[in-house]
Amino acid sequence: MNLIFLIITIIGVPVSIIGSFLHWTPTLMFIIDCITIIGLASFMGRATESLAIVAGPSIGGLLNATFGNAVELIISIFALKSGLINVVMASITGSIIGNLLLVAGLSFFIGGLKYKRQQFNIFEARHNGGLLMFAIIVSFVFPLVFSTKLDHSDVRVLSAAISVIMIIIYLFALFFKLVTHRGVYKKNEGAKPEEHEDPEWGLWKAIIILAVATIFVAYISENLVKTIEPVARSFGWSEIFIGVIIVAIVGNAAEHASAVMMAFKNRIGVTVEIAIGSTLQIAMFVAPILVLLSLAFTNFLPLVFPVTDLVAMVLSVLLTISITTDGDTNWFEGALLLASYVIMGFGFYLL
Amino acid sequence: MNLIFLIITIIGVPVSIIGSFLHWTPTLMFIIDCITIIGLASFMGRATESLAIVAGPSIGGLLNATFGNAVELIISIFALKSGLINVVMASITGSIIGNLLLVAGLSFFIGGLKYKRQQFNIFEARHNGGLLMFAIIVSFVFPLVFSTKLDHSDVRVLSAAISVIMIIIYLFALFFKLVTHRGVYKKNEGAKPEEHEDPEWGLWKAIIILAVATIFVAYISENLVKTIEPVARSFGWSEIFIGVIIVAIVGNAAEHASAVMMAFKNRIGVTVEIAIGSTLQIAMFVAPILVLLSLAFTNFLPLVFPVTDLVAMVLSVLLTISITTDGDTNWFEGALLLASYVIMGFGFYLL
Amino acid sequence: MNLIFLIITIIGVPVSIIGSFLHWTPTLMFIIDCITIIGLASFMGRATESLAIVAGPSIGGLLNATFGNAVELIISIFALKSGLINVVMASITGSIIGNLLLVAGLSFFIGGLKYKRQQFNIFEARHNGGLLMFAIIVSFVFPLVFSTKLDHSDVRVLSAAISVIMIIIYLFALFFKLVTHRGVYKKNEGAKPEEHEDPEWGLWKAIIILAVATIFVAYISENLVKTIEPVARSFGWSEIFIGVIIVAIVGNAAEHASAVMMAFKNRIGVTVEIAIGSTLQIAMFVAPILVLLSLAFTNFLPLVFPVTDLVAMVLSVLLTISITTDGDTNWFEGALLLASYVIMGFGFYLL
Repeated sequence: MNLIFLIITIIGVPVSIIGSFLHWTPTLMFIIDCITIIGLASFMGRATESLAIVAGPSIGGLLNATFGNAVELIISIFALKSGLINVVMASITGSIIGNLLLVAGLSFFIGGLKYKRQQFNIFEARHNGGLLMFAIIVSFVFPLVFSTKLDHSDVRVLSAAISVIMIIIYLFALFFKLVTHRGVYKKNEGAKPEEHEDPEWGLWKAIIILAVATIFVAYISENLVKTIEPVARSFGWSEIFIGVIIVAIVGNAAEHASAVMMAFKNRIGVTVEIAIGSTLQIAMFVAPILVLLSLAFTNFLPLVFPVTDLVAMVLSVLLTISITTDGDTNWFEGALLLASYVIMGFGFYLL
Repeated sequence: MNLIFLIITIIGVPVSIIGSFLHWTPTLMFIIDCITIIGLASFMGRATESLAIVAGPSIGGLLNATFGNAVELIISIFALKSGLINVVMASITGSIIGNLLLVAGLSFFIGGLKYKRQQFNIFEARHNGGLLMFAIIVSFVFPLVFSTKLDHSDVRVLSAAISVIMIIIYLFALFFKLVTHRGVYKKNEGAKPEEHEDPEWGLWKAIIILAVATIFVAYISENLVKTIEPVARSFGWSEIFIGVIIVAIVGNAAEHASAVMMAFKNRIGVTVEIAIGSTLQIAMFVAPILVLLSLAFTNFLPLVFPVTDLVAMVLSVLLTISITTDGDTNWFEGALLLASYVIMGFGFYLL
Repeated sequence: MNLIFLIITIIGVPVSIIGSFLHWTPTLMFIIDCITIIGLASFMGRATESLAIVAGPSIGGLLNATFGNAVELIISIFALKSGLINVVMASITGSIIGNLLLVAGLSFFIGGLKYKRQQFNIFEARHNGGLLMFAIIVSFVFPLVFSTKLDHSDVRVLSAAISVIMIIIYLFALFFKLVTHRGVYKKNEGAKPEEHEDPEWGLWKAIIILAVATIFVAYISENLVKTIEPVARSFGWSEIFIGVIIVAIVGNAAEHASAVMMAFKNRIGVTVEIAIGSTLQIAMFVAPILVLLSLAFTNFLPLVFPVTDLVAMVLSVLLTISITTDGDTNWFEGALLLASYVIMGFGFYLL
């Protein structure tokens, strides 16, 4: 299995780079880039897993989320610079519903086929659930409702103010988790102790592999995004569908791979950490950073999303919270999340 | 008590049948039919209870829900055939809020008058809560929001696609509960072990009584529905009020009777199973089946309900989840649900 | 500390009374009144704390909520008499988000700086969470949605009917808590037993101090409200911002002081009781009473609030429930609630 990914990566990376310089057709490049990213993502997944074992599940989950979303942040900055506000909004929406429904759903489903029940720390799940509710409500629901009674410049001020507070709270959340309350909420409830295993790679080897893979993923993802629009036009898809579904799937390939892998190894706590942690980072860090950066560009990115995007995000959060609140997953809960993802994807396809 | 129901049934069934052939006045027929159904419902309740004891609470609850909703499915198909889309929508809404607020509320209240606290399996309650959230969100909230941006034929496609996925997930849910995870979530938490008691009737006797009573209920219910409109017109009620309140109460008489009976016998787990299970069956099975059947009729039934109906359903689900999530009921929680039902009913009455 | 409050009160009360007779400038009176109320609130807090120790946390929390909201009820009746419907609505909204986000947030934050984790009875938290959901949904969400399809006189009838039912349910809730289920839900879960300590004042001394302080707070609050509008106009604030933020902060000073004090003494259960209990009293008792009283005045107060107010209330409830459902608080959860309050306050400031 790992050999296949190694071959894909060794062949894919140079071919993708050569192709981007020789301007091969978008459809061809699209396929090459997707496959290469899947290969790279497996390395990122294994490197992150090694780091997770060395550093413990909390920081491991954080690393996963950080490295996964670096790709999306870079892509979004380029899109923002080109004034593609709709694509940025759609890819934020897509990342959120993708992480909550697709990444978590596939992990729970596949993990659940192997294990009857997978359990995780219920305290952490509820802490993250509360944070998720806060992030979505304050970042997205609140600005949309108030924007109906505000003029354009007030929406700008409100979006910027919320973004600043959101970044502060995100830093507080890290401080809380890693400094003041490190380990406080562990071992409280009957979560199975996670098996100790040896990391595949040492600390520095894992870091180097993660860094190099991340750079390649970023480079190839950027090319991939350029090819998506022409490809999509020839398939008759809308800009929103591309952002919500395609960008989100490709951009979250890394999280996806490691989350599923962790579920398969019965370390479902790390899976939940990745899926929800990545969502939180998008809502509380990536989106606010993009809003603040857009103040420097011609087109401002407000926190006022289309109502369909907002509803899809809120429904995803409600579903995830109601499914993870019992600290227990199984194949059926995975199937529920996947079914929701398919239905929402179909909805965005029809738009 | 049982003697009274026996007398009602023995007199009511033939009188109701004779009356329907002799075309007695709607108001008279309405009263006769209602009383007869209450009598029949008591037999269904006792038969189901016997089966529940033989088969265990899960299948018992499933049987209850199936036999209760068979009546509604038949009525709705006739209404759909006659193009009465509004009545069908109103009776789906009414069944959902009726099961969640009236059936559960009355059971918790009456059970709570006898017992200080009634406890049930918290795992099952949360599993069902998650499923309920999923069903309402995906079946009703999602289509309404997306329909604002879609044209008529796309709404048709989206409704049909959601219906197909919903039926698949419903079958998955049964497979999960009865095959792969049968009994997995039992005895996990401090739910009181339910007392073992002997069934009133044996397996086959119970099945035959249940089957015969169901047939009579179906026959009489159909006549009842015909009488409701003329009766209502003379009382000055709206079509929606009839569907939401009257049809739902009559159509759910069977669940109602057995849910309350179970609560009275301190088997509150079965009560919750009936109320939530019946709601799930309406949202995930009856409504999707009706949508797919309506493709064959002239008037299509979309999953896009009036916003008042939708809000009533969503609020009922939120209330039920927040009240059942602690695995513990009492008279006051029953009173809360009943008060919500009365207020919603009054709202629909004013429309 | 107590000495400072004593000095503030002894100087503030006569100065405030003299100032109101000599018609000093609104800005000066505003500052004097605010400081005096803070001094009086400290006495109310200490008296209530003494009573809470004597009477146990439930009745103590109830007393807190009652004495805090008596002020708001009196102010609102005067405002209603003057036809200031918008100010009354804004101050109801402000009291609800103030109690849930500011009072609870500041208490959790300050308590969390001293204690790593503060735990409280999870059963009571969930009971109150369910009640809160019910109160907000039925009192405010439901009338707004149905009002879109009803004419003016039906909105009146619906608002009055809901108000009557809400007051009945509120009385049921007290009956449930203090009579039928007194102490039933205590000691069930691992909540730390609250330390026994001696009350500062005896029963009657505490009652007299509480009563006298309440009368002065009511008198000064009324003057304060008169000064707010002129002061606000000179600062360029809107009527809604004043109602939502200023009136709510001043009006809830008493709860505020005692809730924070209880958190600081690690009696976080009483803090939660005060914050949520006060909210419940506003939604289920103060607002319905005002609606029914307004039937006698020229301007009717419907339960149909502006959509921004409604969303702020619903989001506050969702945040509070998702944060208190685990029966455990810390500084970060306090920071989350405070950040939400700041953002909502800024939103209302921009309106």
